[in-house]
Amino acid sequence: MKLPGQEEFEVSRACENVPTGELDSGPGSGPSSDGLLGTESREQGIPKDPLLFIQLNELLGWPQALEWRETGSSPASPLLNLEEMSPVTLSAPLYHRWVLFEEKLEVGAGRWSAPHVPTVALPSLQKLRRLLAKGLVLLDCPAQSLLELVEQVTRVESLSPELRVQLKALLLQRPQHLIQTTGTSPCRGSAHPREASHEEDAPLKEQHQNPLRQKLPPGAEAGTVLAGELGFLAQPLGVFVRLQDPVVLGPLTEVPLPSRFFCLLLGPPTLGKGYHEMGRAVAILLSDPQFQRSVRRASNLHDLLAALDAFLEEVTVLPPGRWDPTARIPPPKCLPSEHRRLPSQLRETEGPSARRRAPAEHRRARGPQAASPELRRTGRLFGGLVQDVRRKASWYPSDFSDALHPQCFSAVLYIYLATVTNAITFGGLLGEATDGAQGVLESFLGTAVAGAVFCLMAGQPLTILSSTGPVLVFERLLFSFSRDHSLDYLPFRLWVGIWVATFCLVLVATEASVLVRYFTRFTEEGFCALISLIFIYDAVGKMLTLTHAYPIQRPGSPTYGCLCQYPDPGGNESQWTSTKPRDRDDILSVDLGLVNASLLPPPECARRGGHPRGPGCHTVPDIAFFSILLFLSSFLLAMALKHIKTSRFFPSVVRKMLGDFSSVLAILLGCGLDAFLGLATPKLMVPREFKPTLPGRGWLVSPFGANPWWLSVAAALPALLLSILIFMDQQITGVILNRAEYRLRKGAGFHLDLFCVAVLMLLTSALGLPWYVSATVISLAHMDSLRRESRACAPGEAPTFLGIREQRLTGLVVFILTGISILLAPILKFIPMPLLYGIFLYMGVTAISSIQFTKRVQLLLMPAKHQPDLLLLRHVPLSRVHLFTAVQLACLGLLWIIKSTPAAIIFPLMLLGLVGVRKALEWVFSPQELLWLDEPMPERERSITEKGLEPEYPFSRSDSEDSELMYQPKAPEINISVN
Amino acid sequence: MKLPGQEEFEVSRACENVPTGELDSGPGSGPSSDGLLGTESREQGIPKDPLLFIQLNELLGWPQALEWRETGSSPASPLLNLEEMSPVTLSAPLYHRWVLFEEKLEVGAGRWSAPHVPTVALPSLQKLRRLLAKGLVLLDCPAQSLLELVEQVTRVESLSPELRVQLKALLLQRPQHLIQTTGTSPCRGSAHPREASHEEDAPLKEQHQNPLRQKLPPGAEAGTVLAGELGFLAQPLGVFVRLQDPVVLGPLTEVPLPSRFFCLLLGPPTLGKGYHEMGRAVAILLSDPQFQRSVRRASNLHDLLAALDAFLEEVTVLPPGRWDPTARIPPPKCLPSEHRRLPSQLRETEGPSARRRAPAEHRRARGPQAASPELRRTGRLFGGLVQDVRRKASWYPSDFSDALHPQCFSAVLYIYLATVTNAITFGGLLGEATDGAQGVLESFLGTAVAGAVFCLMAGQPLTILSSTGPVLVFERLLFSFSRDHSLDYLPFRLWVGIWVATFCLVLVATEASVLVRYFTRFTEEGFCALISLIFIYDAVGKMLTLTHAYPIQRPGSPTYGCLCQYPDPGGNESQWTSTKPRDRDDILSVDLGLVNASLLPPPECARRGGHPRGPGCHTVPDIAFFSILLFLSSFLLAMALKHIKTSRFFPSVVRKMLGDFSSVLAILLGCGLDAFLGLATPKLMVPREFKPTLPGRGWLVSPFGANPWWLSVAAALPALLLSILIFMDQQITGVILNRAEYRLRKGAGFHLDLFCVAVLMLLTSALGLPWYVSATVISLAHMDSLRRESRACAPGEAPTFLGIREQRLTGLVVFILTGISILLAPILKFIPMPLLYGIFLYMGVTAISSIQFTKRVQLLLMPAKHQPDLLLLRHVPLSRVHLFTAVQLACLGLLWIIKSTPAAIIFPLMLLGLVGVRKALEWVFSPQELLWLDEPMPERERSITEKGLEPEYPFSRSDSEDSELMYQPKAPEINISVN
Repeated sequence: MKLPGQEEFEVSRACENVPTGELDSGPGSGPSSDGLLGTESREQGIPKDPLLFIQLNELLGWPQALEWRETGSSPASPLLNLEEMSPVTLSAPLYHRWVLFEEKLEVGAGRWSAPHVPTVALPSLQKLRRLLAKGLVLLDCPAQSLLELVEQVTRVESLSPELRVQLKALLLQRPQHLIQTTGTSPCRGSAHPREASHEEDAPLKEQHQNPLRQKLPPGAEAGTVLAGELGFLAQPLGVFVRLQDPVVLGPLTEVPLPSRFFCLLLGPPTLGKGYHEMGRAVAILLSDPQFQRSVRRASNLHDLLAALDAFLEEVTVLPPGRWDPTARIPPPKCLPSEHRRLPSQLRETEGPSARRRAPAEHRRARGPQAASPELRRTGRLFGGLVQDVRRKASWYPSDFSDALHPQCFSAVLYIYLATVTNAITFGGLLGEATDGAQGVLESFLGTAVAGAVFCLMAGQPLTILSSTGPVLVFERLLFSFSRDHSLDYLPFRLWVGIWVATFCLVLVATEASVLVRYFTRFTEEGFCALISLIFIYDAVGKMLTLTHAYPIQRPGSPTYGCLCQYPDPGGNESQWTSTKPRDRDDILSVDLGLVNASLLPPPECARRGGHPRGPGCHTVPDIAFFSILLFLSSFLLAMALKHIKTSRFFPSVVRKMLGDFSSVLAILLGCGLDAFLGLATPKLMVPREFKPTLPGRGWLVSPFGANPWWLSVAAALPALLLSILIFMDQQITGVILNRAEYRLRKGAGFHLDLFCVAVLMLLTSALGLPWYVSATVISLAHMDSLRRESRACAPGEAPTFLGIREQRLTGLVVFILTGISILLAPILKFIPMPLLYGIFLYMGVTAISSIQFTKRVQLLLMPAKHQPDLLLLRHVPLSRVHLFTAVQLACLGLLWIIKSTPAAIIFPLMLLGLVGVRKALEWVFSPQELLWLDEPMPERERSITEKGLEPEYPFSRSDSEDSELMYQPKAPEINISVN
Repeated sequence: MKLPGQEEFEVSRACENVPTGELDSGPGSGPSSDGLLGTESREQGIPKDPLLFIQLNELLGWPQALEWRETGSSPASPLLNLEEMSPVTLSAPLYHRWVLFEEKLEVGAGRWSAPHVPTVALPSLQKLRRLLAKGLVLLDCPAQSLLELVEQVTRVESLSPELRVQLKALLLQRPQHLIQTTGTSPCRGSAHPREASHEEDAPLKEQHQNPLRQKLPPGAEAGTVLAGELGFLAQPLGVFVRLQDPVVLGPLTEVPLPSRFFCLLLGPPTLGKGYHEMGRAVAILLSDPQFQRSVRRASNLHDLLAALDAFLEEVTVLPPGRWDPTARIPPPKCLPSEHRRLPSQLRETEGPSARRRAPAEHRRARGPQAASPELRRTGRLFGGLVQDVRRKASWYPSDFSDALHPQCFSAVLYIYLATVTNAITFGGLLGEATDGAQGVLESFLGTAVAGAVFCLMAGQPLTILSSTGPVLVFERLLFSFSRDHSLDYLPFRLWVGIWVATFCLVLVATEASVLVRYFTRFTEEGFCALISLIFIYDAVGKMLTLTHAYPIQRPGSPTYGCLCQYPDPGGNESQWTSTKPRDRDDILSVDLGLVNASLLPPPECARRGGHPRGPGCHTVPDIAFFSILLFLSSFLLAMALKHIKTSRFFPSVVRKMLGDFSSVLAILLGCGLDAFLGLATPKLMVPREFKPTLPGRGWLVSPFGANPWWLSVAAALPALLLSILIFMDQQITGVILNRAEYRLRKGAGFHLDLFCVAVLMLLTSALGLPWYVSATVISLAHMDSLRRESRACAPGEAPTFLGIREQRLTGLVVFILTGISILLAPILKFIPMPLLYGIFLYMGVTAISSIQFTKRVQLLLMPAKHQPDLLLLRHVPLSRVHLFTAVQLACLGLLWIIKSTPAAIIFPLMLLGLVGVRKALEWVFSPQELLWLDEPMPERERSITEKGLEPEYPFSRSDSEDSELMYQPKAPEINISVN
């Protein structure tokens, strides 16, 4: 068992070339811990070099140093002294540092700049080459300390003895580093220039405190470049040293790392910043992994210059008239593939297949094409299920031991809150949709039971079960169908569940899960868009219904006023006038001379034995608009909080918190506002005790109830539709969760997952609980909260993804907590329904915005000039893109029409019909166009590969063109769920 | 008089190096039309070369051509044939084109890529150099047609006669261009490959239709590069031709421009895209202005190679490991200064002053430092005014003739709508603030009169007068002061106005406007932030007040129910029961056995002679929340529409329209919603006829009214405060409007403007109309709608700004129309007040978000890592930035406290106090820090320049560092006004 945080220094190959450290093949707690990826890197056959931290210090010896002395600094310190750099200083030294990207010390601001791509002028590189060619190159220098090194370095023939002494003194001076502590205020090291002493090789306290130290992986080495103009030198001096054993050169580098390289570029003053720029050039060279590798292995000057030439062969050039050389380029999202940079001979031997593989991998890791062996048909009955069980069984013990990490606690908290929000929202909506046949209590109970069972049994235990949008829509339709035909809902539903379970078992037995490959993005998007639109339509519709229930009172509308009439005219008058003579409406009735009526509000009236009479008695004013306000505020607040996650404000922990809990916070704030105003908004219905929401039923549903016996057979028909829906919903989610990019080590279990869903279908139907399938977004959030990432990242580098803590415990704990949360029921009745409608709308809008279809619909509204540089627009004519979008829109329109007819319940069948439409599209669009707009279907894929088209055409050229765009993060296709 | 649109081809030097065309010194309708800028460009002494359009066609001769023929194309056409490029094509030709930036033909998508900075691999440039060195270089080739050119070009010794014939045939083939018509569907030229004929030199129809043609300025020339691998060649062939006279080479280039350069780079097939990349290299070289200039003047091969070497000397290099060479870099906001690229000898001779000037100009064009001669003190009484009048008089006739341009019509429409919106909003708010002493009618009338007078008389006629935020705030305070002391408001106000006019005249006489140099950004920001906060506070406060006027009805609250009681018990019963027996509440009263009461709504009850009785009679339900909804929707809608302007959606005309009219649209939509629901929301008060809003007063205010005589003297005190406010508001706006970056040719008139304001002060006070000063944002919008811009811009280039149509007519027409709009008054009463509060909030939020202070406050909430790369953060330590922000926050807090006390009316004095605080800050902050955080104050500036610090320190190094950041657009500091 590793210590927590230890593997943060391990490095992944997400961008395969990130040279941040040694190879380490993940936590070795599983049987095949160095699986695919380990093999891949071994294939490359290139041992990784240690990470290099490079620092450039400018030496100011002339003429600045003289002026320096005059401004009062210690006379023996011609070196950098930041403390002395008052604003009057004419010229300040230039510090730079590199790990992956360049950072510059902003002298005035006293902080390091944002990391940026290092750029350098070509002449500097060429001048550097000339200087090194005639300079001193010491490879495998045996120096053990700075003193020894300086001795070696100054042993240049061209230097006269007195110059040598002067130079030595200069080099042994201690530079002062600007070390930014974790806070925002930089700490500038001690102000007193210390004289060179014997202790000089011991790193200083500031160096150890440098927060950059923690970011560099163990084994990192340093390279130091000292450059500058020295007035006392007569001719340029270039020294390049590779130390035999890296050694800590005292306070020379900002971070106390052992130095491997040392470079000295000095010369007489010339125009411009010549030596400094040469220093930057050598630092940029050293920060290049290819050059570094060559220089580490170089045995003489020739090798060094050859490496420099090889670097020059590869550089990209920016023309001076079209690019400001001083502009800082922010670090790209992903670095160029090192694979492509291999020497061409080496690359050629690997053959064209290797070249083809890389982009294809990046582009379509999401789809069924990347489908793992789990989706290969065995041909035996239940063969897939048996395989799944076997595979998962071997991991079962580790599924619990792997959970012992503090990160799992925060994951549990996050997923628990999301699950509870889900349970409340879906429970509330389901309760409304089914007139209380379902409800919040059922939702909590069902979520807890189904989730926990699934976590213990399933093939992919990271999945979080939930009532998802499609199932909710279907249940609503099923309920209105059974109401229209006066059926006893829950027994009917039980039979539907039994049949669904049966069908699902058949699907498991026949290994039907492999058919998931036919659900291309076209199908997924149609599925997601329809459900999202239903969500949006329903949310707005429910709000409009509220304004009917709580009508708005227009001036002069007849619903104005309400009297409280007492049944017994005159009889009770004395009784209540006497008890409360100061009551305002008592006074009013007396004033009016009324004896049998008062203006008491209806509830009060009823309490006192009267009857509220009048058109205004059933209207509650202000509720309609307040509900709209609650609805809008919860929607907008959830959206805004979600966006905070990507804003610049607040530390990332806070941002993540606000973003992750956006819907919880929106609900809490809405409840607070509602409670503050105390209006009688419609609230979530919660039974007072722990019993089913529907009055008068036990927990177990009776198999027939008031229904005729043949209904149990007829239920097979809707069950068929629901099976389609559940199969699609479950398996599309399954494919997304098991994508190669998540690097799951323990494998998927599509058949086992579907089997579990079938069993749970039976259980929940029998108990009258909601139905559950895998929910994409919350499961992805679960996985995301369990990411293992390298913390040791260089400035400007994105943390690298190492894998996911695959285990069953977090899910289990979440669902146990959800079960316990049934005790929360009494406080749930304070949640106003409009808030939940707002969250409902938020879910729909978030889901529909996440799909590529929406982006393409937006393209319809954009002039071609302003369209974003999407990959597909580079390869497919705009008119074809629009045609594809139009086809999708037409399909969606048709689905919507069907959904609006009485035949709405057959919509799952029509979703399945999308597969056929997609197939028909092959007659309209070329395979290449479909490749960019969608993805190939199974047979197609084969035929394309046979023809050699798929990897050839779109990549033979675009391989060199679209690389950066390849690395765009992919969003899940279907994500109707609360978080 | 020039024809409309003609000067769009003129080019400015906003980015001084944009090489789009010849020099032309603006429309010559003014006395000094080639003033400062013309001189500046003459100083540089570099004649501009014509713009060059460069196209690279790839020649595919081997082995593709053979395959090509086999796929069914015409056998004689080994050249490009896009029609044949079915998706099965293995290799498609590569087209590129350059004007300023590079565009690549996306073959699959059939469109040109987004323009990007051209990048090329260094080896391609070096290979190109080697090829040219031993190739054929024809400078001043006398060819007059493509045929002649091809003859010349193929006369290379190394070619055998048959190869020569083959090559000639190849070169005479017509390439097919992808010409994108203005729509989105590209037109691919004619499908039939035409045989070479004698007409070949005539440009084709498609070429003439090319929309790119319109974008290129007259006189533009073309350069053509043909590159590729030809199977039949035995050795590389490089030809570079400069034509003596540019000639249209038939269909060779996409745009029918006369070609000046022609380059042929062919060779036997090698690995990779060698020749194509060399072709790109030569095209990139030609698109570089410096290289182009040298090559145009080159007399032999040596000069050509020297130019190439000079180019290489300047290129920036991107390291291969840190930058993906295929990533496309979007065009930078501004190109690097060509000035900096001058040969260093030339630059040196200009001396250090020239080097210093450039960045200082860019950085601080906004402040008083750029103050023009108009702000130099003459030392004579009214000396400045006299000068202003003299200067403006010479321009007076052209102030009307310059307005004859269609652009002025759209400017009038835009500014008219903005002015009316302003008049309504401020009129409504002022009416509320002064209990009807002012109102919408006064606002319309005053705006029209004051605006028109100002346009006819003022020094800067582009200024739009308006009631601005500060004056509105002051008037509100003045009114509550006079109400608290039971003064007759309008006569008191008249005396204040008389005194203000007197003080302003004194300020004009003493040329006090030069003091505006003491109002640095610190003062401006304090001014703007205070007023914005008052706006935001008032808007929200007014909404909360509404909820008191229209209380929310909580369940069980006593304000429930209202009866209609008839004065005459029993008497009238039969009368109204018989007339309307089906009336619901008649039935109800009968049913209840009531004889003297009914449930009629209060207005109806009163109409029928009853008295509404009961606690609920005066409450109108639903109004409070509906008002909040209206308030929020107008605010959010205005914000959203404003943001559409910078979104990608819709054509830019539509976006501009939506953005410009955001508040008008928000008000109209809100009115529609309000009318649809028909609720009794509080509406804008408008008198029924054309008379002052205050009942019983004539248009002329009586000088004393009910006030004691000595009040006319005492009014001098508040008048002093108002004078400060008006002076600050007017002159800060004046400085902003007359900034150098707007390139006004006719000069400013600060003294004359203040004089006009004084006169108008007198007039409006006497008539009891609102007070007016220059409004920053609407004036800037006015100027913006009169911008002259070059339409002829290359792809990726931003249009260049040529100047502003300075005239008096647009303003005059706007205010005449505003005057006529008084007829609109009857429909203004449908505007609900909450809408105007929403716009009020929008104004405050927009204003406060536009200042740098807000950005610095946001920095307080951002972790240092996520802070944007602001220029000031590069030069000032974060803690000092925060300290400066904290000082500003403290000042603002103090101002707010004063504003909340009864002494609120003295706030203008405290605003003036900010100047003192700013002065005191010089003890805390160094001059450099203040230079970045604020701007120097007059004396300081002088002393800094004396010490040589100002231009030295911050720019000696940053000159080469911050160039790109210098070009960030500047926002006006103060912009409290509707649009």
